[in-house]
Amino acid sequence: MALAMLVPAAVDFGDGSPDWPVFVQTAIFTGMISGLVAMATQNQGVRFSPRLGFLLTASLWLTAAFLGALPLYFSHLPISFAGAFFESMSGITTTGSTVLTGLDKMSRGVLLWRSLLCWLGGIGFIGLALLLLPSLRVGGIQLFHMESSDKSEKILPRVNQIALGIVLAYVGLSALCMLSYFLAGMSMFDAINHAMTTLATAGYSTHDTSLGFYAHNRLLLVISTIFMMLAALPFVLYIKAVMPRRLSSLVDPQVTLFLFLVVGFSFTLAIMLRVGDGLPFSDALITAAFNLVSIITTTGYATEDYSLWGPLSIGIFFLASFIGGCAGSTSGGIKMNRLIILWRLAIASMTRLIMPHAIVKIRYGESEVSTEAAQTVLLFFFLYMASLILGAMVLATLGLDFVSAFTGALTALSNVGPGLGDTIGPVGNFSTVSDPALWVLSYLMLAGRLEIVTIVILFTRSFWAR
Amino acid sequence: MALAMLVPAAVDFGDGSPDWPVFVQTAIFTGMISGLVAMATQNQGVRFSPRLGFLLTASLWLTAAFLGALPLYFSHLPISFAGAFFESMSGITTTGSTVLTGLDKMSRGVLLWRSLLCWLGGIGFIGLALLLLPSLRVGGIQLFHMESSDKSEKILPRVNQIALGIVLAYVGLSALCMLSYFLAGMSMFDAINHAMTTLATAGYSTHDTSLGFYAHNRLLLVISTIFMMLAALPFVLYIKAVMPRRLSSLVDPQVTLFLFLVVGFSFTLAIMLRVGDGLPFSDALITAAFNLVSIITTTGYATEDYSLWGPLSIGIFFLASFIGGCAGSTSGGIKMNRLIILWRLAIASMTRLIMPHAIVKIRYGESEVSTEAAQTVLLFFFLYMASLILGAMVLATLGLDFVSAFTGALTALSNVGPGLGDTIGPVGNFSTVSDPALWVLSYLMLAGRLEIVTIVILFTRSFWAR
Ligand SMILES: [K+]
Ligand SMILES: [K+]
Repeated sequence: MALAMLVPAAVDFGDGSPDWPVFVQTAIFTGMISGLVAMATQNQGVRFSPRLGFLLTASLWLTAAFLGALPLYFSHLPISFAGAFFESMSGITTTGSTVLTGLDKMSRGVLLWRSLLCWLGGIGFIGLALLLLPSLRVGGIQLFHMESSDKSEKILPRVNQIALGIVLAYVGLSALCMLSYFLAGMSMFDAINHAMTTLATAGYSTHDTSLGFYAHNRLLLVISTIFMMLAALPFVLYIKAVMPRRLSSLVDPQVTLFLFLVVGFSFTLAIMLRVGDGLPFSDALITAAFNLVSIITTTGYATEDYSLWGPLSIGIFFLASFIGGCAGSTSGGIKMNRLIILWRLAIASMTRLIMPHAIVKIRYGESEVSTEAAQTVLLFFFLYMASLILGAMVLATLGLDFVSAFTGALTALSNVGPGLGDTIGPVGNFSTVSDPALWVLSYLMLAGRLEIVTIVILFTRSFWAR
Repeated sequence: MALAMLVPAAVDFGDGSPDWPVFVQTAIFTGMISGLVAMATQNQGVRFSPRLGFLLTASLWLTAAFLGALPLYFSHLPISFAGAFFESMSGITTTGSTVLTGLDKMSRGVLLWRSLLCWLGGIGFIGLALLLLPSLRVGGIQLFHMESSDKSEKILPRVNQIALGIVLAYVGLSALCMLSYFLAGMSMFDAINHAMTTLATAGYSTHDTSLGFYAHNRLLLVISTIFMMLAALPFVLYIKAVMPRRLSSLVDPQVTLFLFLVVGFSFTLAIMLRVGDGLPFSDALITAAFNLVSIITTTGYATEDYSLWGPLSIGIFFLASFIGGCAGSTSGGIKMNRLIILWRLAIASMTRLIMPHAIVKIRYGESEVSTEAAQTVLLFFFLYMASLILGAMVLATLGLDFVSAFTGALTALSNVGPGLGDTIGPVGNFSTVSDPALWVLSYLMLAGRLEIVTIVILFTRSFWAR
């Protein structure tokens, strides 16, 4: 992270922006902190317990958000510390909600820093979900582990190799995305920034109007749509794709459902736009698909105020904010794998009510879902809904109107970015939101990113017992 | 029900209102239908299966709503059939949302019929939750059954006696409520109507301004608050209270939590009103407690637009709409017993994550919650949230604004009555809502009243298999 800070420092220095010493100073500070943490961790040598895992995960993200906020706070931006922390948390959790306006004229160092936070947050989250959370049994995706116990998959590489493969896929796709953006007509600086926030499904832009700045460039929207989709698919897929194996192992029920939903919703919205606004169907489809994919992958770019597309669109975008992409990607929300498991659990429960003696097993793909995994999914769902309702209540108490409070809590918890309504809707931002509300939203973004359980568990009595 | 229809017929006849033949005709029709159903049921003599139970419950409520709508539709009211069905469903499910305006000048027969629907719906629901749902294992309240297996409770009377006791408690409290209202200054007709809709936690009033009509009468508000509370406590409590047994068996965790929440929220709101509006504290407390109790018990009376009390009030009233009263009462919502079980399940799940080998039992009062009961509670929670989100989405699609769509779905599903916002808020009503939206809301009210599972299960494949 310290090294990452030196990048915007160099850019700002090159641009002659007065913020460059801030980046250097905070880089040194961050480097020192990181060094201390690394030393402390090495000296400890303790056995890895769940308790320690939860604490470490939470403090890692919290520290990263704090350190990420420093350059923003000490730069020449007119924001409070709550604002800087919110902005940094929004980046590191790949939410992409912003308190800043006037992005188009902002120093390039700050813009690059925001994008870098997203990009690091994105790969950090995939690592977390793939490597750490399963061992804490918080069901980021245990799919991968379930598969490795399958005998036919003996050729599966070891954890280190998987981690390397994923980093390569992430970096490679980012580079490819950047190049495509550039060739489609973005400036190099915009291409770099947007590539980073696309792969992280974060949605920070270098323009106040987000990708609406390029709304006339149809090709660019198509490219962006494709890469947002790629960023919301399980990254393990890319490793599998390049490895020698039968094609059937590439089929993951969550990917099927995801593609099905995206196509279904996009066509519905496109038909509506065609009928309502009289756009040519190809234009309507591109606009509809771009904005829908942006929300369902929890990226949060917008080309225009889709809430004006008519009543159906509000419903669909509202629903899409809950859904999210696939597990094992950078996207947020409830996610496809959990939706499938929740759905099957509900069906199984009802079947048991009808046929009390039936034995109903919950299957996911080719494996059976263990009771333990099912419990974790149910726990997530309960905590997600409870956080949403209580979050909305607290935000309303802090003075937000009902729509902003509810969709604000939702967009933060799902790491989407924009909410609904005049204030925080697709063409708005969080610049007018009060500091206390920004703290609450920062908490919700963090909780949402760490699958909620990881954060809420810190507040339980049994966590601190003995 | 046919007999019940003759009551408003008599009243209207006495008043010289032109609607009385309508009530007589529909009474005859209803009587015929009931007779046919009774005959069909007797001839059948089949073994009682879960399938039949679900089907019977759903069709009973649906038929009642349909029959209840007939007098409203054929009377001189300016409403569509969707409106009449909505109004009847709203009564029979004790929701109390209305499409009618000009209540103050309406024929007394219609007003009485609305109240009667609520009153019958209220006792019908308690019967359903106590007697039928437990045998379908939909966890209305299995508490009662759990207790009867306790050895110290051998003196518990048989089912018939319990049913009789509950009917007596319901009728007795209704009479007491009516008398109190009358003595506190209501007209006899208003006292009868409001007593019926209070005990049913339904909230229909004979005035457009609801109990705001009597807002100056502090005593009346206190009385109403007390009876709403009584209506939201488990009715089994009243049977136990008059039976010889140790006091401790009266303690039910859900009652404790309920009283705690009501007192806590009321005082918070009262302090806010005192500070904000400068009301004397006693007045503030009475107003706050009345409106809060009205929502949390899912009655739905209102004396004024509580959403104007400031940001905190919107949050509290929003939360209260989810919560609901105790199981075994006439109130709706998630209810206290399920909230407690959900909470304990979440804590247990998290404890298991921290201490993988710990054995954690879920207790409710003095009994242990079975895995099966826990599953049913989780199923309810999932279906409740999914119905809410999808319901809000469909309502938004049908043209309601976001606040109306979301709180409309919520208020219908929890059988509360008023939502938030300008249209369907505490001082509004559903008269401007379109017919298709009324059908959706009618469905949500029915689903909410029948604990959702009972309705949703009818849409599963396994219900109709074989
Ligand atoms: K995002
Ligand atoms: K009600």
